[in-house]
Amino acid sequence: MEKFPLKSSSIPLNAATTYQTMNKKYSNGSGLSSVTSDDSDMIDITTSTAAGDRNTTTRSQDDDDGNLQYSVGFSNMLESGDIPGIGQYDDFHTIDWQRDIARDRMRHRYIVKKKQDSIWTLLAGAHDAWSGWLCVLLVGLLTGAVAGVIDIGATWMTDLKFGICPQAFWLNKEHCCWSPSEADLDSGNCSQWKTWSEILGHSSEGAGAYIISYLFYIVWALLFAALSASLVRMFAPYACGSGIPEIKTILSGFIIRGYLGKWTLIIKCVGLILSVSAGLSLGKEGPMVHIACAIGNILSYLFPKYGRNEAKKREILSAAAAAGVSVAFGAPIGGVLFSLEEVSYYFPLKTLWRSFFCALIAAFILRSINPFGNEHSVLFFVEYNKPWIFFELIPFIALGIIGGVIATIFIKANLYWCRYRKYSKLGQYPVTEVLVVTVITAVFAYPNPYTRMNTSQLIYLLFSQCGISNSDDLCNYNRNFTDVNSIEIAAAGDGVYRAVWLLILALGFKLIMTIFTFGMKVPCGLFIPSLCLGAIVGRLVGIFVEQLAYRYQKNWIFSGECSTGDDCITPGLYAMVGAAAVLGGVTRMTVSLVVIMFELTGGVRYIVPLMAAAMASKWVGDALGRQGIYDAHIALNGYPFLDSKDEFAHTSLAADVMQPKRNETLSVITQDSMTLDDIEQLLKETEHNGYPIVVSRESQYLVGFVLRRDLNLAIANEKRMVDGICGQSLVLFTSGHTIQALGPPPLKLKRILDMAPITITDQTPMETIVDMFRKLGLRQTLVTHNGRLLGVITKKDVLRHVKQMDNEDPNSVLFN
Amino acid sequence: MEKFPLKSSSIPLNAATTYQTMNKKYSNGSGLSSVTSDDSDMIDITTSTAAGDRNTTTRSQDDDDGNLQYSVGFSNMLESGDIPGIGQYDDFHTIDWQRDIARDRMRHRYIVKKKQDSIWTLLAGAHDAWSGWLCVLLVGLLTGAVAGVIDIGATWMTDLKFGICPQAFWLNKEHCCWSPSEADLDSGNCSQWKTWSEILGHSSEGAGAYIISYLFYIVWALLFAALSASLVRMFAPYACGSGIPEIKTILSGFIIRGYLGKWTLIIKCVGLILSVSAGLSLGKEGPMVHIACAIGNILSYLFPKYGRNEAKKREILSAAAAAGVSVAFGAPIGGVLFSLEEVSYYFPLKTLWRSFFCALIAAFILRSINPFGNEHSVLFFVEYNKPWIFFELIPFIALGIIGGVIATIFIKANLYWCRYRKYSKLGQYPVTEVLVVTVITAVFAYPNPYTRMNTSQLIYLLFSQCGISNSDDLCNYNRNFTDVNSIEIAAAGDGVYRAVWLLILALGFKLIMTIFTFGMKVPCGLFIPSLCLGAIVGRLVGIFVEQLAYRYQKNWIFSGECSTGDDCITPGLYAMVGAAAVLGGVTRMTVSLVVIMFELTGGVRYIVPLMAAAMASKWVGDALGRQGIYDAHIALNGYPFLDSKDEFAHTSLAADVMQPKRNETLSVITQDSMTLDDIEQLLKETEHNGYPIVVSRESQYLVGFVLRRDLNLAIANEKRMVDGICGQSLVLFTSGHTIQALGPPPLKLKRILDMAPITITDQTPMETIVDMFRKLGLRQTLVTHNGRLLGVITKKDVLRHVKQMDNEDPNSVLFN
Repeated sequence: MEKFPLKSSSIPLNAATTYQTMNKKYSNGSGLSSVTSDDSDMIDITTSTAAGDRNTTTRSQDDDDGNLQYSVGFSNMLESGDIPGIGQYDDFHTIDWQRDIARDRMRHRYIVKKKQDSIWTLLAGAHDAWSGWLCVLLVGLLTGAVAGVIDIGATWMTDLKFGICPQAFWLNKEHCCWSPSEADLDSGNCSQWKTWSEILGHSSEGAGAYIISYLFYIVWALLFAALSASLVRMFAPYACGSGIPEIKTILSGFIIRGYLGKWTLIIKCVGLILSVSAGLSLGKEGPMVHIACAIGNILSYLFPKYGRNEAKKREILSAAAAAGVSVAFGAPIGGVLFSLEEVSYYFPLKTLWRSFFCALIAAFILRSINPFGNEHSVLFFVEYNKPWIFFELIPFIALGIIGGVIATIFIKANLYWCRYRKYSKLGQYPVTEVLVVTVITAVFAYPNPYTRMNTSQLIYLLFSQCGISNSDDLCNYNRNFTDVNSIEIAAAGDGVYRAVWLLILALGFKLIMTIFTFGMKVPCGLFIPSLCLGAIVGRLVGIFVEQLAYRYQKNWIFSGECSTGDDCITPGLYAMVGAAAVLGGVTRMTVSLVVIMFELTGGVRYIVPLMAAAMASKWVGDALGRQGIYDAHIALNGYPFLDSKDEFAHTSLAADVMQPKRNETLSVITQDSMTLDDIEQLLKETEHNGYPIVVSRESQYLVGFVLRRDLNLAIANEKRMVDGICGQSLVLFTSGHTIQALGPPPLKLKRILDMAPITITDQTPMETIVDMFRKLGLRQTLVTHNGRLLGVITKKDVLRHVKQMDNEDPNSVLFN
Repeated sequence: MEKFPLKSSSIPLNAATTYQTMNKKYSNGSGLSSVTSDDSDMIDITTSTAAGDRNTTTRSQDDDDGNLQYSVGFSNMLESGDIPGIGQYDDFHTIDWQRDIARDRMRHRYIVKKKQDSIWTLLAGAHDAWSGWLCVLLVGLLTGAVAGVIDIGATWMTDLKFGICPQAFWLNKEHCCWSPSEADLDSGNCSQWKTWSEILGHSSEGAGAYIISYLFYIVWALLFAALSASLVRMFAPYACGSGIPEIKTILSGFIIRGYLGKWTLIIKCVGLILSVSAGLSLGKEGPMVHIACAIGNILSYLFPKYGRNEAKKREILSAAAAAGVSVAFGAPIGGVLFSLEEVSYYFPLKTLWRSFFCALIAAFILRSINPFGNEHSVLFFVEYNKPWIFFELIPFIALGIIGGVIATIFIKANLYWCRYRKYSKLGQYPVTEVLVVTVITAVFAYPNPYTRMNTSQLIYLLFSQCGISNSDDLCNYNRNFTDVNSIEIAAAGDGVYRAVWLLILALGFKLIMTIFTFGMKVPCGLFIPSLCLGAIVGRLVGIFVEQLAYRYQKNWIFSGECSTGDDCITPGLYAMVGAAAVLGGVTRMTVSLVVIMFELTGGVRYIVPLMAAAMASKWVGDALGRQGIYDAHIALNGYPFLDSKDEFAHTSLAADVMQPKRNETLSVITQDSMTLDDIEQLLKETEHNGYPIVVSRESQYLVGFVLRRDLNLAIANEKRMVDGICGQSLVLFTSGHTIQALGPPPLKLKRILDMAPITITDQTPMETIVDMFRKLGLRQTLVTHNGRLLGVITKKDVLRHVKQMDNEDPNSVLFN
């Protein structure tokens, strides 16, 4: 369709008469609009947009002739729908769910109505009906593809720090070694792959080679990190961090323009590959959610149903978030539950089904790309052959408690550091900060083999069972091959003790570095670092329990299962349980966490241990510090997020919260006794986004609500259209049958009046009001007493009140 | 604690002064209360219950001294909470979610407050905090145990129709044959197990033995069915059917007293074993949800937090429903999603986590009981070793379409029959009907081996792959063992063709019998019959595609995968996909269906085919007939269920829906100008459950809302307490400072006034109102215009309006 920027201006009378809009029907609770633009072209068009609404509402229920009006009015809207700004919001403002959803239903009704007209409209109707599915299909396809590219890129660049494949530089180490001869793969070396010291003519052994490799490692890391930080700084500041706190806020109905834009997407993908390759203590799983949501946002613009309607767009974003987790972990069901439990706000069942479809498609595509070169699309696929034993629940729960404690330490320290960064000079040097952290990470990571390797590899190693062929230090057991009964259970050898010490060092190092890394101005997630911390702790506990079982085989606790000589304790399982515990403590995920871990392992067998640990960890975390990392970062940034999980447990009433407070007066407009001068004075003196209309200043009986923006425009329009308007003209919000013979002609503005604002009484408990704000997606509500207006409660007022009651700083809520 | 039935009566003044209750704070939208009891003892106590509320609401936000009042008032409530009837509702009435949840938060605040008082209150607080988890733990334990008992009982009694284990009559056939020698198990016969003809001295072969077995089969079936139907008829009429439509309605906030009671539980368990054993075309999976919910309901009475609060109780019931599906299919995650998607209404995230826990515990217990004697806790565990091929999506989608058609035929025919039963004489002879259907089922089922066997066994057989050792007709392929390339793919033998004909007969038979069976007055579910219908269709299609692939191995479609001689088509997988399609079409489940099927097979590999079929089936079903079987039965029974999945897509306004209609007058009470006679006249003439209070009959400015029941009681109380009250006394709902010197003393009733009713304006679109009713759980809302009262909209009005707009009979909504 073409754009018609001047259409309404050219027929202003029509525009004016169809102005009665959203007010009458769809603007409940929309009030205090965020849009304060003065672009009158755009506005006039907005007015005609509303025509459909008005026509539908004025016709009586049984009046079929209303349909003509309806479709005529609606076609205006569809046309003007092509003009930018319709149904959109300003940056950093809250959306009005009710109005957006009503707008969509109106669209839908119009299309259903039109369907019978011609083949073309029938097709348009079919396209509209399918566009949701088509959109999530495309999102799934693209998310899978992008995830594949990121996985391949990150693997290649991570290997680049160590060496190169001279015959084919585009291959990573695994593929380089894999293609010609598979023989040497296990030993970790192959002739095709050259380390940098080999390239420079040195041997691969010896102190010189070590130093050269060390230096190359640091230089590459610095290069990658510098590139990543500079790209983010220069092109897309929103590409930094994990993005999940912002996604949560956006899905709860907030506008952050550009956060899901194409530049953010591109820079986040490139920066993510770079920062992962730099060896920083961060993961690419969290940012995958941001990337998927950006894809969802961009693709939604192909479908006007979603692209032009912020509330509907959030359905696509919820599905995209599910796809993001799905590709991050190869866990489609876990992804859907993550979206449902953790990030989404408005999640109707239709969205559940589409999210599932989207997540599945994304996982399917990623598996087809097969970036890891194995048959599983997951990062660390493990399969244990031993069931767990009932008494193991004790160490599992202990792991949960330890996980909760580690998570709390991490959250508190990270928050402290982020707050320091935010309010100190440090925040002005993001690239320098990244470089310093990179150097420290690289210098300390290289000497320890467990930190030198890719974090995903480390997790995989920690999760895995010790086979007899496994040559890692972790599997260095003194196995007695002569005694059949003792092959599997064995005393730990020197290697295991060495590994334990290195792992303890790695644990401390990773914990500290992650605290400083998460929140830096590069794309960084903390799923993988959290899992890694937990896996280390878990493996350590697992080895401890295993050796305990070996030493005290005859003890009654172990005798049932371990005395046969079988390997009754699987340290890898402990690593997995520990990983779940720390991740659960950090993010406060519950069901989705267990399902993700369950999909990673592919068996229901270990759900009970995982669940026990996740529960213990969450409870310990909740007891030690109320918020998960994402909620804490939301609070730190002052986003207006009204958490649907927290219960409002206080006893205040609407009268305690509403504006104005005692001794202040509420700015109202009377329906028929204010002059134009009065109103222009009011608009000048106050900055409210909307004004209640009352019968008279004395009675304060509520008539409706009018938006500041609408008021400005309607006055300008009337001045243009009606001759003789002057400062003494009365402004009337009543029906126009009061004939006024004397004085200048009045301004008749009933058509911009929202006659269905959501109201509550002053005695309504805040519990109910918080519930209404959450469930109905309100922006504000009017407070009345016996039909008389007392005040207004906006979402910001509610958020501030919640903060205040929780003894937090109410001024930390920044946006409305 | 003791009960204090007369406590408030003994201090009536206190009761009266603390009466201001819920009105002020917690009764938003509660209006039109369902309790019309006149038991004044109970009522006085109710009034003191409210004290906590009033005290909390009247104190100012910062007033800490209010806490004393608060806890004093609240302790009244806790004491009176022991008296039956508090916070409860009458049978067949709708609950008020907002008030119940507010009551619970009040309780919670009180307990948190009290915690510091002593060790005892600390323990009580801890117990309260844990009671939710403890309750779902118990529900899970008991559900798993009961499911185990039912499974064992049903298996034993099903085998009893064929024979008995003389050495140990309590063993079923499998266990009987299993214990002494395992050798003969595969052939289906063992020496320990005697068929009835053997017991009677005949051989197990020959026409005589066949006739004896046939007769025994019919007689046992009749006996079981008669017993089941009689038990249900005599002891627990609610135990019939699957129970899922009623559970959905109950979870949406409706009271059906006794539906989840102990008698229903016991009779449903026993009747379920009997009716399954009778060989009727029904399953025990749906009723398992009802059984689990009954367990949840009964156990919730152990915890006052849940037992005494209908809204909170529904959290336990949601978790119990998840446990029910979890034990029915051995699918805990599927169970939780089923609860979320299909049956639950109010499902906060806390409930998600608890439901998961509950489902897991139940599955764990059932697995420990191990009723099926194998290592999987599921009915039909299958594992395929072949991946599906991309072109197979075509037959899978075709299966989805066929499934949707079969499901629609089933739903329409079943509904027709149920409606006929309901309005004809047939409904008066439930036992006779059961007996007739049983005889027909038994007579026609026995000759066909596929209908003679247990339906679960048939499904298992249809799902399974044909191994070389499998001797069933279905696996009678002409395998060419000399050619290595053609061992697996082979032409169908005579046995397969025979099996195909028998399966087609079985399909028709099962479809017809299930139509007549579902809705009879015995416990019966339709998960298993639906799965069975789908599995038969799927297997038939699978065999067809398989033979197609064999015949046209060289065709380009098949050449890629099938030309190697491998068995490229797995008919068992088609059976599973078909089963999912029909079940999806019948119940309109989506995600939960796929997850249940995925948990049955234990692999993500077949999610895409399952999903494609489920989607196709749902869309076909939705196109052919709007409702799933459960929603159709809800509508048939006229339950007040406001579906949260349907969108209200019409354009009516509050003014179109509200009562009274044009030309009628609304019954209101003025705040200070009506005499006692006027009000008693009003109460006599109208039957409304509540009355709005307005400033004056002329102005109609809304002041508040008063319940009929409260009004009756308060008048009686005033008459008792104040001397000189007569018919001419004014009834005042204003604050009492208007001193009236003349005439009889007035009745001051401000304390029973609900000053925070939910109000909307007459211009509010019904979309918004339906949304508010769903999301806030309202019972009614008041309609105003400029602060003036116009009318009332109740949930029943909304339901009727929805029906009317959908061209259905609005009078089919029976309850409010």
